[in-house]
Formats: sequence, C-alpha cells, structure tokens
Amino acid sequence: MPQLRQDPSTNEWVIMAKERAKRPDQFRKDKKKKIVPEKDAECPFCPGNESKTPPEVLAYGTGKLGNVSDWRVRVIPNKYSALVPEGDLARTEREDFFRWMDGVGQHEVVIETPSHNRFIHLVEEKEVGEIILAYRERYRMLREDPRYNLIIIFKNHGEAAGTSLEHPHSQIVATPIVPAYIRRKYEVSTQYYDNTGRCLYCDMVKKEFRDGSRIVMESEDFVVFHPFASRSPFETVIVPQRHCCSFGDISDDEAREFAGVLRIILQKIYLGLNDPDFNYVIHTAPTKDENKDYYLWHLQLLPRLTTVAGFELGSGIYINTALPEDTAAYLREVPIQ
Amino acid sequence: MPQLRQDPSTNEWVIMAKERAKRPDQFRKDKKKKIVPEKDAECPFCPGNESKTPPEVLAYGTGKLGNVSDWRVRVIPNKYSALVPEGDLARTEREDFFRWMDGVGQHEVVIETPSHNRFIHLVEEKEVGEIILAYRERYRMLREDPRYNLIIIFKNHGEAAGTSLEHPHSQIVATPIVPAYIRRKYEVSTQYYDNTGRCLYCDMVKKEFRDGSRIVMESEDFVVFHPFASRSPFETVIVPQRHCCSFGDISDDEAREFAGVLRIILQKIYLGLNDPDFNYVIHTAPTKDENKDYYLWHLQLLPRLTTVAGFELGSGIYINTALPEDTAAYLREVPIQ
Repeated sequence: MPQLRQDPSTNEWVIMAKERAKRPDQFRKDKKKKIVPEKDAECPFCPGNESKTPPEVLAYGTGKLGNVSDWRVRVIPNKYSALVPEGDLARTEREDFFRWMDGVGQHEVVIETPSHNRFIHLVEEKEVGEIILAYRERYRMLREDPRYNLIIIFKNHGEAAGTSLEHPHSQIVATPIVPAYIRRKYEVSTQYYDNTGRCLYCDMVKKEFRDGSRIVMESEDFVVFHPFASRSPFETVIVPQRHCCSFGDISDDEAREFAGVLRIILQKIYLGLNDPDFNYVIHTAPTKDENKDYYLWHLQLLPRLTTVAGFELGSGIYINTALPEDTAAYLREVPIQ
Repeated sequence: MPQLRQDPSTNEWVIMAKERAKRPDQFRKDKKKKIVPEKDAECPFCPGNESKTPPEVLAYGTGKLGNVSDWRVRVIPNKYSALVPEGDLARTEREDFFRWMDGVGQHEVVIETPSHNRFIHLVEEKEVGEIILAYRERYRMLREDPRYNLIIIFKNHGEAAGTSLEHPHSQIVATPIVPAYIRRKYEVSTQYYDNTGRCLYCDMVKKEFRDGSRIVMESEDFVVFHPFASRSPFETVIVPQRHCCSFGDISDDEAREFAGVLRIILQKIYLGLNDPDFNYVIHTAPTKDENKDYYLWHLQLLPRLTTVAGFELGSGIYINTALPEDTAAYLREVPIQ
C-alpha cells in the first residue's frame, strides 16, 4: 500500500510509492568517472584568467582585492547576472492587471577553489570552512543593502543540476522580493507558533531524534536527516540544533562545524551514489524576519536522481520512489575517506 | 535591464532574464529524429499484448471490453500504480506531529493509439478527439467516486519529461487530497473574485486579447497564449473562452474543437522546436469545487528545454531565458502540415 505523507513545513502531500520503490543502492549511478583537468586555460574561473571576470568583491588569500591570482576563494559579480543592482523598486501595474518591476538584485559567483577539478566533496575541511565563511561574509554584506529582502545561497553541481561551468563554484542571489513560496512556509510556521508557542522546525528536529530512523548523522550543533515527506530520493537536510533563523548569524565555531558536517555528507553522497549531480540551497529567513522565533535556517541537498514529470507539475504532489528511512540507513553506513 | 513579473494566479514572481535571453529558434533541438518502429513485440501497450496489462476500464473501437486487440484508444489501470483504490481515508497523527494516510487513489494509463510510433502530434484531428473523449469519460467516471477530490490528466513525452515507455500514452490520477498548491491558486482567485466580482482567469484572457503580443492562436471557443509570467521558455496554455471550471463539463463540440487546437499546438511545438520532450497537464477544479465562478480549466504545455536549478528549488523564483512575447511570435509563424 503506498502512503501519502504531509510535509509539516508546507502542508504539501507527497506520495511514497512503496510498490515502485527501489533499493537505495539502485540509485547509484552506473557511470565512469569523467576525467577533469586540474587547470583549463579557457576557464574564466581558473587562476591567470581573473581579467576575464568582473572585478572581485571578496578574495581570501592575498589579503587584497584587485583580480590578482594568489587566492583560495574568490567572489565575483556574475557576468551573466539574472538581476542587476540598479533600477526602480516600485511595482508597476500594467493595464490595471499585470504587475512587474525592474529586475533589481545582486547575483554573485563564489569560486570555491583555484583548482579546476577540486570539487567540494574532495577537499579538506579547512577549505570547505573558507567557502562557508565567504558565503557568510557576502550574506552579511548584502543584507546591509535595504533594497534586498532575501538572500539565496546555492550550488549546482553537474549538468542535470543546471550548471554550465565545470569549475567548482556556488552562487548567491539577493532579491528585493520575498517569493510567495517563502511567505507560505512562514504562514505555516507562524500558525504553528501561534498554536503551540514553539518553533515548528525545532519540534521537527526533536521528533526526528525521537524516531531516529531518518537521522543520517549528528554533531554537537547540527543534525542531518532525510525528511519524513522527502519529495525525492536522498533529499538531505542539515539543520542546526540551536534555534537560529538566519544563516548570516552563525558564529565562527558554528561555521567551522557546519563545514565539517557538509563535507562528510557530500562525501557520503559522492561515494554512496557515485558522484551524482546535485543542488544544495541554504534556506534562511528573509532579511527583515531574521529575529523571528519560528524559522530555522538549514541546508537542503537534492541529488538529481529522478525527473519531475507532468503529475508533479500539474498537482504539486511529488511521487518519491524511495523511503527516507531506507536512504538514511544506507547513507549512515557509507564510510568516508 | 532584467524584469521581474508576477504571475497573477499564484502571486509568484518570475525573473525574465532579457540579457541572457536566447532567440526563440535557439531553443530548437539539434538532434536527429529517432527511428521508432510501428510495432514493438515487447511493448505491453502494443496490440496483441493486451494480456500483459491489467483489464481495461475503457476501450474505443470494439464496443466491448475484455482486453481484445481491436481498439483505437484504451484505458487501463496503471500496473505500477502510485496510488491504489483501497485503504483508509483517515489522516493519521503519528507521534502527535507527522501526518500521513494510506495512498488511496486511482492511477490509469490512456493508450492513445495501437501504433507504437503514432505520436499525438502526428495524428489526425479525429484521433486526438477520441483521446480527449477518453479523458473526459474517465474523468466523469472517477468524479463519481466520493473518495476523490482531484483528478489530474497529464502526458509525459520523452525522457526529459519523465516517461519510461515509448508507446504514446497519457495518465490520469485521482487523489483524495487537494494539494496545498491547488488550494493556494484558489485562495488567490477567490480573493480576486471577492474584490472584483469577476473570474481572475477570464480577466487574464481578456487582457491577453487586448495586448495580443502573447497570443499564439485562437479558435471560436479557445485561445492559446504564452503567459505573461511564463516560468520556462515556450510555456503554452490553451484556455476556453467561455467560463467553465471543470474539464469534465465540456460539451462534445468543445471537446472536438479543443482536440483540433491541441493538435495544431503540438504540431507547431514539434516542428518549431524539432520534437522536444514535453509535458502537458489539464488543470481543472477539484471535484467539489466544479461550480465555482472563479476558476477556469485549461491545458498547460511545458516543453522541457531548460533545467530547474538550485535557485529555483530554493526560492520558488524561476529564471526564464525567453520572453513569452518572442516565443509566441515565433510559434505563430510556424506553419502546420
């Protein structure tokens, strides 16, 4: 008998298609490793090609900015920016019906390493740590701009995850709008808070601990689990154990520990599923809601193992062909290097 | 300057990345046509293999049911059903927190033609007409079951659209739940109705007519356009011009005309984009809301030309690299055979 499970953070239902379900190891990619060179003369993100990118806004390594080559992590404005830091914030009514506005915002690229093939799941904890610090530094800088209401940090790894450039990088987008999707998650957690006086996400973490079956690992300050109503196989979240709304507010210690946990999870996914394409996103409160009691920042990791089809597009109901209890058990056992 | 556009039916914003935008013809697939045989002895949907499928629930052709081979359109229960027509409708509270229920529902496959390679964009209008009548007949049958609240009819064409079987087919799923996604679209249109006394969707159609730039074609009872806030290139909707909530309530004449329009649009997409993978979905009111004044059934067609990446997954904001005005103009000019 299949099961319908409700995601408590969105109220959306997910079909757990047990009859169609595959074993977790069946999601392992059956592909040969692609050989990627350590340096690509044509790559705009490789050292020596700094002049091919817009001037950097942050660089760790040299202690000075200016598109010089001696850096370890580097943040630049996206050359093909989806939003631009100019224009009018006013929403327009067009013909009394449609609403639009200038595409105001900021779109940055975090070049994670000088090496063209040093993917984030292969690097040392210290290096992941510097990437996380770069995320946080840019987050803190962007939230000072009163035009921006939401800052999204994300990574696309591999073609199926929507990346076009191979060199290891993540992206940061600051937008003036809070999307309806985020507003609705807030409505749900606000309602829960008003009913119970507690944070929905903190309660979810407690329940996951009590149950245990979907926990992948935990550290002092973080816990990693596969959500009860995961929409796709191996959906993984890293959640802080201390209530904290905003990624921008994590301490140095937390950033370091988070980097360590992220590295372990990325290695487990890499080894357990044979280098699948994946996205990760840091979900965090809108900048003007960072001190609310009812949201928890977290990282969501989505290996791209299945295809969203007409049913999902039409109904918003996802069909998951793997049980999170099974995938969490599988990932727990994957040894890291 | 990029533009942010708001979808009036969901209140979600979409980024129209004009600077990154491609010309409509750049979305044309550069692939050779795959040769598909007219019959595949291994295919469970090909005539002669009726016994490999569950007993049919509808067949046009023989005038009698019973898995006989003389049919033109055939509907069968899905052998690998995501939901099953048994079990308990009660929602359960588990550990006072997570909510789940049995996966009650019905999942059917519409085998559109006996021919293994007679894809819906290649067939005669009369044949499309019979597929639409089969959709409607099964819709009407399923809505009689009081357990079901929503019936989704959809088609996945090609691997990128999530299909696993080549033989031309569509699917119908009846679910006991109304997803939050659909509820929210209703909230938006209810609010609009309460404010204005008018149907949001009917007003949208009027505005599209007045503007004209996004209209692809019209017939007596239907209009086809690329929505103002399209989330992906060549998103196409077919909308009735007469207010009607439910696909189940269309007349024979409307079904015939709808089939004719659908066939033209599928041909234009096939020829204009060189046989792209696509999904289509019939959006229709939940079965207990079919007589409301503020919803319009419609078909949404989504060619799978781009990849959803981390930004979309994290924010719910889509980046569209084609303007609907440009893609509509391109599709208008594609001659049909």
